[in-house]
Amino acid sequence: MLTIDLIHEARERIYRYVHRTPVLTSRAFDERARCSVFFKCENFQRAGAFKMRGATNRIRALTEEERARGVVAFSSGNHAQAVALASRDAGVRATIAMPSDAPRAKVEATRGYGAEVVFYDRLKDDREAVAREIAGRGGATLVPPYDDYLVMAGQGTCAMELFEEVTDLDALVVPFGGGGLFAGASVAAKALNPRVQCFAVEPAAADDARQSLAKGERVKIAPPETIADGARPQSPGELTFPILQKNAAGVLTVSDEEIVEAMKFLLLRLKILVEPTGALPAAAVLSGKLAKNPRRVGVVLSGGNVDADTLARLIAPANDKR
Amino acid sequence: MLTIDLIHEARERIYRYVHRTPVLTSRAFDERARCSVFFKCENFQRAGAFKMRGATNRIRALTEEERARGVVAFSSGNHAQAVALASRDAGVRATIAMPSDAPRAKVEATRGYGAEVVFYDRLKDDREAVAREIAGRGGATLVPPYDDYLVMAGQGTCAMELFEEVTDLDALVVPFGGGGLFAGASVAAKALNPRVQCFAVEPAAADDARQSLAKGERVKIAPPETIADGARPQSPGELTFPILQKNAAGVLTVSDEEIVEAMKFLLLRLKILVEPTGALPAAAVLSGKLAKNPRRVGVVLSGGNVDADTLARLIAPANDKR
Repeated sequence: MLTIDLIHEARERIYRYVHRTPVLTSRAFDERARCSVFFKCENFQRAGAFKMRGATNRIRALTEEERARGVVAFSSGNHAQAVALASRDAGVRATIAMPSDAPRAKVEATRGYGAEVVFYDRLKDDREAVAREIAGRGGATLVPPYDDYLVMAGQGTCAMELFEEVTDLDALVVPFGGGGLFAGASVAAKALNPRVQCFAVEPAAADDARQSLAKGERVKIAPPETIADGARPQSPGELTFPILQKNAAGVLTVSDEEIVEAMKFLLLRLKILVEPTGALPAAAVLSGKLAKNPRRVGVVLSGGNVDADTLARLIAPANDKR
Repeated sequence: MLTIDLIHEARERIYRYVHRTPVLTSRAFDERARCSVFFKCENFQRAGAFKMRGATNRIRALTEEERARGVVAFSSGNHAQAVALASRDAGVRATIAMPSDAPRAKVEATRGYGAEVVFYDRLKDDREAVAREIAGRGGATLVPPYDDYLVMAGQGTCAMELFEEVTDLDALVVPFGGGGLFAGASVAAKALNPRVQCFAVEPAAADDARQSLAKGERVKIAPPETIADGARPQSPGELTFPILQKNAAGVLTVSDEEIVEAMKFLLLRLKILVEPTGALPAAAVLSGKLAKNPRRVGVVLSGGNVDADTLARLIAPANDKR
């Protein structure tokens, strides 16, 4: 089970290896949003995203025998880089399985942190078979991206830091992909401030959490089209979903245009780079999706990994829909 | 004269109205630069640049009579926005004179801070005549962009904060446009740590400070072509030049390509937006222009105001010269 004690333990285990990221505020953003927003800047985290917290917690909790056999992860995104860097820190061998059409920049970044990258064909190979093959090489431990209590507890440490630094928050707003960040952050937040309302934010085109919450069971959607690549899991996790049901005051959705507008505001006014998935909560707040107008709002800017081409395309005037 | 006392007074006068900006560090940058770099993030300053410090100090030092008559400034850049915002804070009327071909985004930003913008024809009108006309309307006080001891003292407060927070710096590296930031920052730095070496950085195409220092007198260059628009003054200031002569360990120059590379590193790795002029010192450090390899280096990231089109153009792959 995911408890506040597990999150306290996670913090003790990881604090030497991750940044305590700053909390920023902006008068310009607050004027637009009509509330006071406190940004927890996980885009400044090591490897560029909160994923470093969960990966570090999972890997540092391995037994000596498990460490010797190494770890494996499936990801072409922030989880891949986090597992690679956390493994290098810990002196553990990491193998990252990526689809063969993964962006070269992501492959290079992951290799840059010392991991071995193996490719699989997304259309022909299935992930189970790839996992069996890698495990067959020596029994590596799988580090899941969200459906693991140690991973969730690690992610929760960012909200623990935020709530210790900023008191009296009325709401906490975080992005929702597989649900690991929401699970960890909402458990930490409610333990430190029981009356806080926790909101998950998804792209409108990838609203599996919203649908699942409404139906009362995990709904699987078709592969979604959205620029928020961290929010592409097709259903909430098996372990994260009950925590969403218990802790969510609501699931909010935003359009890709609202995401881009929030990214541009954060970039051009606050001068910080946030990736599309990381901008989901800021987009929800800016576009007025929070009902009941909370006064003080915590927002997790979950990551900042965007490549130059994508960024140039997103901010170019042709993409300015305003 | 510009003294440390004047900078202490400036801090007392302005601290309520400007941000104490954070100092950031980056393992990735340090690995590339082969030294420990401490970034003073004036890109997070109000109105997006250190200029807010000097403008606020000058305007808050006005007499009651002067305040009633308002202020005027010539600028289409960060100084314009700083004078506009500092005036609004202080309840003082501001008129900003801009060339009629100034970018619309800059005009709108300045008006957004409540200033009146008047245009002049850069080819036909001379600035003296425009100034006389505005002054004729009621005796407004001119706020100069750099050649003024109160303005310089205000700019110096950013280095004072940096040197109080980070001890034992071997070098301080700042951009050089008209020389106001270098003057204030070097006087503050040397008062707090007499053995620190202060470097000014210019674009190679706008090396008026380098030429002036070599010749021992102020050299005026032709209007330079560079993306670092804050470094386009054609000669060092009359009052700032003697301070450059006294305090500079050297003037370093970087190419526009080196500036773009530094901007991209700061954006894509540190996740912070720095404008071309603001990236001059980071470019000098990254491209190995600091001789004698100082161990601990303070770098002022002086501003973050870039419009979306320019940024998209700079980071697009076609501009990647590597």
